[in-house]
Amino acid sequence: MSLIVQKFGGSSVRDAQRIRNVAGIIAETYLEGNDVLVVLSAQGDTTDDLIAKAEEINSHPSKREMDMLLSTGEQISVALCAMALESMGLPCVSLTAWQVGIQTTAVHGDARIKRIDSERVQAELDQHRIVLITGFQGMDRAGDVTTLGRGGSDTSAVALAAAFRAKLCQIYTDVDGVYTADPRIVPNARHLDEITYDEMLELASQGAGVLHNRSVELAKKFRVDLEVLSSLERKPGTKVKEVTKVEKTTIAGVAKDTSIARIALIGLRHNPGVAFQVFDLLSKHNINVDLILQSIGREDSKDISFTVHEKDLEDARAILTENQEVLCFDHIEVDGNIGKVSIVGAGLMTNCGMAARMFEALYEAGINIQMINTSEIRVSVLLDEGDVDRAVRAIHAKFFDEI
Amino acid sequence: MSLIVQKFGGSSVRDAQRIRNVAGIIAETYLEGNDVLVVLSAQGDTTDDLIAKAEEINSHPSKREMDMLLSTGEQISVALCAMALESMGLPCVSLTAWQVGIQTTAVHGDARIKRIDSERVQAELDQHRIVLITGFQGMDRAGDVTTLGRGGSDTSAVALAAAFRAKLCQIYTDVDGVYTADPRIVPNARHLDEITYDEMLELASQGAGVLHNRSVELAKKFRVDLEVLSSLERKPGTKVKEVTKVEKTTIAGVAKDTSIARIALIGLRHNPGVAFQVFDLLSKHNINVDLILQSIGREDSKDISFTVHEKDLEDARAILTENQEVLCFDHIEVDGNIGKVSIVGAGLMTNCGMAARMFEALYEAGINIQMINTSEIRVSVLLDEGDVDRAVRAIHAKFFDEI
Repeated sequence: MSLIVQKFGGSSVRDAQRIRNVAGIIAETYLEGNDVLVVLSAQGDTTDDLIAKAEEINSHPSKREMDMLLSTGEQISVALCAMALESMGLPCVSLTAWQVGIQTTAVHGDARIKRIDSERVQAELDQHRIVLITGFQGMDRAGDVTTLGRGGSDTSAVALAAAFRAKLCQIYTDVDGVYTADPRIVPNARHLDEITYDEMLELASQGAGVLHNRSVELAKKFRVDLEVLSSLERKPGTKVKEVTKVEKTTIAGVAKDTSIARIALIGLRHNPGVAFQVFDLLSKHNINVDLILQSIGREDSKDISFTVHEKDLEDARAILTENQEVLCFDHIEVDGNIGKVSIVGAGLMTNCGMAARMFEALYEAGINIQMINTSEIRVSVLLDEGDVDRAVRAIHAKFFDEI
Repeated sequence: MSLIVQKFGGSSVRDAQRIRNVAGIIAETYLEGNDVLVVLSAQGDTTDDLIAKAEEINSHPSKREMDMLLSTGEQISVALCAMALESMGLPCVSLTAWQVGIQTTAVHGDARIKRIDSERVQAELDQHRIVLITGFQGMDRAGDVTTLGRGGSDTSAVALAAAFRAKLCQIYTDVDGVYTADPRIVPNARHLDEITYDEMLELASQGAGVLHNRSVELAKKFRVDLEVLSSLERKPGTKVKEVTKVEKTTIAGVAKDTSIARIALIGLRHNPGVAFQVFDLLSKHNINVDLILQSIGREDSKDISFTVHEKDLEDARAILTENQEVLCFDHIEVDGNIGKVSIVGAGLMTNCGMAARMFEALYEAGINIQMINTSEIRVSVLLDEGDVDRAVRAIHAKFFDEI
């Protein structure tokens, strides 16, 4: 028998009807002769409701108590889903993260999984029971409840799939997989049957947001075959794996991100290490920097431009301004009205033609490029925010409509 | 430092305001220099809401999954109450029953506490933290979540008080203690400052219902000093202990129970062991019998009357009728319109005058007594249901107004 891990998100279990639907998917997989290990998130608005309850009492509760509170959400989901499977006459058992023994670091609200005890789950699987496990949570060495932070249930599912050597880890969500572009912007965007881990990582961090990066990184590390699919429509999703079968003749997709802002430090002295000083300072304040461009400015000085998440813009500006004397720059410029558009594809950089086609599409659409940044499998350009959607459509058309 | 256990029921923590009130009581006790161990029930309607969620999915869920579901209620309470204490700057930690190590039998929905690991709680108390523990729940040997059944949080509190040798176990509830009669029936009922375990047990089983019997039995067994008091009014409650200080010159109180029914088996043969057969049969069907009266009937036969809980009346009648031939009785009579009134007091039976005064009060009020039953510390009479409240008032007046 082979093991399949199935993860269902909060909207997939938001009410009794949805839970019955999820139980139907699980039952089908089980009755096809598979062992099934299910990972569930908290129901729809449960987490928000619990946060509201907490805020009414304490506007800054400790993260430990917040984890204690929020972890009840997934426990409710697994118990209810087990009851739905029981009513179908299927053998099943729900388990919390502490019952499973999902050991994590002690960082409440953003813990990392360290290891998973296999004993209890294996015993249940040996009895051919469907095992339902609370996602998003674990316990630390002291026996305290921890939560894994954003996308935590996906990470739980992948970690369990790795620990129990599952044949497949299915992530059920609202959409039926990954597309070549956001279908809301590009109506004829194509559904991808397969995608590599690296492509998925780049697409996710570029804003596609179907799977959380941590879960994809974990899947890549342990070679867990992932599938993203819809819990509402029974049709094939997108498989995420190490190597995709088909020879790539084009990119995997076009992604956009408009939640960024650009900061430029103008007139920096030509001191060695000045770039290090700037980015070290920001990193110490937990501000992530994305694209970086360094240009020669006036005599004896240079300019450095870079992007940050727009939520970090004011913090970054304040920190840099405070340190203006140490960093020795002339003035600072910021721009929140920018966006990033990227093409992603395995082996993209070994095929120079790809980047050129992207720039050609933008040129034909009359869109100015402010900055360019590339990785092994990605080319990103920085644009005016107002140009972003048009750029996505133009690039998508160039790669997919002209083939 | 001495340890005080404080238990708060569902209505005491039903919303943010009530939780802040509870936190205030805890804080006061802690700041007086005590170690404090708090046991909480689920918030107000949480348990009912969770049961409704379950019923929508499965009308007969397994008790194991029901325990998994319901145990989230207390976890929410302890986390929220910890947050309230945090906002007051007090050191505290919430713990679930599994984190504490409250080991129970594996009877889901009605488990019994077997033992309590002391390590984690003691470590927290040693750090002078207020420890908040989920009531009503435990875990069995397999590591599954169990719940303790009705009155379970009271039992959790008493068991913890016993395990950690608390100086006092305070049970906070809606009322400020135990009265000589139900104040809704007897407006001038008196508040009792002290009462013995045995008196409390008799009053509880006679319908006073402030504390669940299991918790009082446990308190008696481990000599835990209990106090029943109100979470809404800051005034002394009723202390429940092995021996009360004051010399008893009167009864502890008058209790009533109208949720009973009388069954009479008429014309039973004079076989030895026939009474045993009747009550053994009922006991095998989990039907508890309370008052029993055996009277000589016609020649060669006798009648047996007894009372059962009214919910068991139809089952009992059906079982007895099915076995009419074996039990050899003539016919069966039932009466659901009866009630029981009791006086309770330590050493009551060593003072014959007490029972006589009770009967005198009923005689003066013109109330007929159908059956009489006594224990060491209780005298109960069976009456027409319509006479019950009048009887309580008459008896209460005889004992308390005439002193």
